[in-house]
Amino acid sequence: MSSKGQLRIGLLGCGTVGGGLVALVNLNRDLIRQRSGVDVCITRILVRDLNKERPGVSRNLLTTQAEKVIRNGCDLVVELVGGIEPARSLIRQALAQKKHVVTANKALLATAGFDLRVTAAAHRVRFGFEASVCGGLPIVRALQTGLAGNRIQALSGILNGTSNFILTRMSEEGMDFDSALREAQARGFAEADPSLDIDGNDAGQKLQILAEIAFGGRLQPAAVEVEGIRDITADDVQAARELGCVIKQVAEAESHADAVSLRVAPLMLPASHPLASVRDEFNAVVVKGDAVGEMTFCGKGAGSLPSASAVLADVVEIARQDSGVHHVPAKALAIATPHRQARHYVRFPVPEPSAIGKIVPLLEKQGIGIARAAATWAKSPASPSQVRITTQECAENLARKAVRQVAAAIQLAGKPLALRIAS
Amino acid sequence: MSSKGQLRIGLLGCGTVGGGLVALVNLNRDLIRQRSGVDVCITRILVRDLNKERPGVSRNLLTTQAEKVIRNGCDLVVELVGGIEPARSLIRQALAQKKHVVTANKALLATAGFDLRVTAAAHRVRFGFEASVCGGLPIVRALQTGLAGNRIQALSGILNGTSNFILTRMSEEGMDFDSALREAQARGFAEADPSLDIDGNDAGQKLQILAEIAFGGRLQPAAVEVEGIRDITADDVQAARELGCVIKQVAEAESHADAVSLRVAPLMLPASHPLASVRDEFNAVVVKGDAVGEMTFCGKGAGSLPSASAVLADVVEIARQDSGVHHVPAKALAIATPHRQARHYVRFPVPEPSAIGKIVPLLEKQGIGIARAAATWAKSPASPSQVRITTQECAENLARKAVRQVAAAIQLAGKPLALRIAS
Repeated sequence: MSSKGQLRIGLLGCGTVGGGLVALVNLNRDLIRQRSGVDVCITRILVRDLNKERPGVSRNLLTTQAEKVIRNGCDLVVELVGGIEPARSLIRQALAQKKHVVTANKALLATAGFDLRVTAAAHRVRFGFEASVCGGLPIVRALQTGLAGNRIQALSGILNGTSNFILTRMSEEGMDFDSALREAQARGFAEADPSLDIDGNDAGQKLQILAEIAFGGRLQPAAVEVEGIRDITADDVQAARELGCVIKQVAEAESHADAVSLRVAPLMLPASHPLASVRDEFNAVVVKGDAVGEMTFCGKGAGSLPSASAVLADVVEIARQDSGVHHVPAKALAIATPHRQARHYVRFPVPEPSAIGKIVPLLEKQGIGIARAAATWAKSPASPSQVRITTQECAENLARKAVRQVAAAIQLAGKPLALRIAS
Repeated sequence: MSSKGQLRIGLLGCGTVGGGLVALVNLNRDLIRQRSGVDVCITRILVRDLNKERPGVSRNLLTTQAEKVIRNGCDLVVELVGGIEPARSLIRQALAQKKHVVTANKALLATAGFDLRVTAAAHRVRFGFEASVCGGLPIVRALQTGLAGNRIQALSGILNGTSNFILTRMSEEGMDFDSALREAQARGFAEADPSLDIDGNDAGQKLQILAEIAFGGRLQPAAVEVEGIRDITADDVQAARELGCVIKQVAEAESHADAVSLRVAPLMLPASHPLASVRDEFNAVVVKGDAVGEMTFCGKGAGSLPSASAVLADVVEIARQDSGVHHVPAKALAIATPHRQARHYVRFPVPEPSAIGKIVPLLEKQGIGIARAAATWAKSPASPSQVRITTQECAENLARKAVRQVAAAIQLAGKPLALRIAS
């Protein structure tokens, strides 16, 4: 690291994720400094075409020569070129020059991740690849450190957003496979050639990368048994519903006595399964550890900013470690009292159900719109007569004040209750 | 760190979490060495009573003098004494002697966490407190590094397992508050005096700790507005169900222009809300960041081993950083092909629905028990006649083989499908 409290990033590639990274570093520069204790700045960017429009990216930083990015004036290289070559050679070059490397390159990690990690360790620099699996979801570091005290017994996940989007549309709108795929393509979730996603190979690569960390060793891409979702029909989805299930493309890795199993396949999941409620392009991972039991992580698995967020997580961690100390921001935070607009449930214990005739107009007089009002008759001392009201959307403080006013104006049989209905 | 690739831990306190830590270090010693590159060992343990039975804990390590734990032969102090004093003084003493410190002490973090972090930074040592919030859930490090590139806009969570257990029992079994509380106490989820949990103060302390990291600054415990769940009745829970909601104790923190809001209160959550499906003693946190969008973390929030897991996460991270390099385990992982026992959904496109009469006996002959079988008539070319079968539990490879045998024995109108029904 340079001596000025700066971490200088050389960026290889400025496409979707690279552009997101530049934007995010600019947007949250103050925060990143606060959290890492150093100033993170991008000093050079490798591109193919110097003349392409890149909003927010300074032309002075661009070069078409990778050498210029890696060799001079950078502490850390971020590889966002994608594919196996030249990405692998560039990363090796950077590691050999004792630069830390951060990458989002899933295909490369599945092919050569293990070797690159060994190479980085040999050069005593850091190699971060959080962004290669499940975008913004910090699952790599959860396995590397957050759950490091656990023997991981199994992990399963929805690792491919495209397949999950398709299966969600089929399930929720009764679409057939082809229509759902076309919608995914129209929305930009699926490539023109969607086979990597729907045949399970994308999820397979991610599973392999996660399993290497979870189980501590090296795996070949061929170790993953892969089955796609092309054969799932609208009828199958309907049949699943009749069984109280949904169909999901699930990646599963399990530790056995002295071996691991790895598989991607469509499964039927009962509604109560932690992966059953993961919708659309979201990703989720369930990790089972011997100490923590089952733990679920869910979030957006892809996209420019979520992936850039994962790249930055690695960058910030390296910056914090290089600075050797965790910076603690000194400011005292001021307190706000927001008045959230929401529907409310309010309940009044009353001597007689007829009190509803007084309560409703009292609330309305204070500007509370009523969506639904009901009176119930006493069933037992623990369940007295009640007036229950669901309000229209209103400010929380207004709802609470109105309830207090009602309690002051008429005689109640107990304490009233007001609950916001979250959206 | 000592020069022998060892990280020596001085342990203050050997109760529930401390005992769990000793057990977990013994159980997963090989794994921890693999992941951290160093040998983590507990060299001294502070206890009150030298003669108490502590299965698995060597008596030679015990002492009643804190001095002896902190001063000599340790690189890192784990504080599990609990409460404000003497815990705070002991931690200060350890930091002043340039020992890293890891603690699970929520009350202390809420009171003095900010100061202790500043002190640790001044001494250039690490201060880990993952275990102080939500046990095994690695939410502190998710905020500190995993989402470090994000401006956190809001976070909300179910941070108190006792309250969530009570509300889950009320919702799922129609219990009233007092019976549910008694069950929580009987199962050891609630203290004899449950007020810290059910009145919201426990969740409030956790929220304050998380908000200090998420929003980068200092907060006072009084900043959190707290409302308990004592007033929730079985009738309210029923009313929530009628509105398609569940009642949960929710902790919410939001960032506003130049201030933050913090609150713990019971809320009604629609069934689709990411916190609505968090049951029993589980904890969950939803973080909203400007780059990643909404991200959910869910797992066990308390207990001996989950909390010990969080302590070890901090220990391993410190060990990795001290060792300066991430150790990469060299072994190739062997591949297993497990034969999971499960129910299966199998579907055969057939020329005529009557084929069900041949398919069922063919499956049974191969040892597949049938739970349900149905034939459907062709609706369209895309939806031909089908035979759909749900099997009894059987080995996955057996189910797949049986489907292949059926396809070989009789003429089908298309490819059959077999899906495991996950449990």
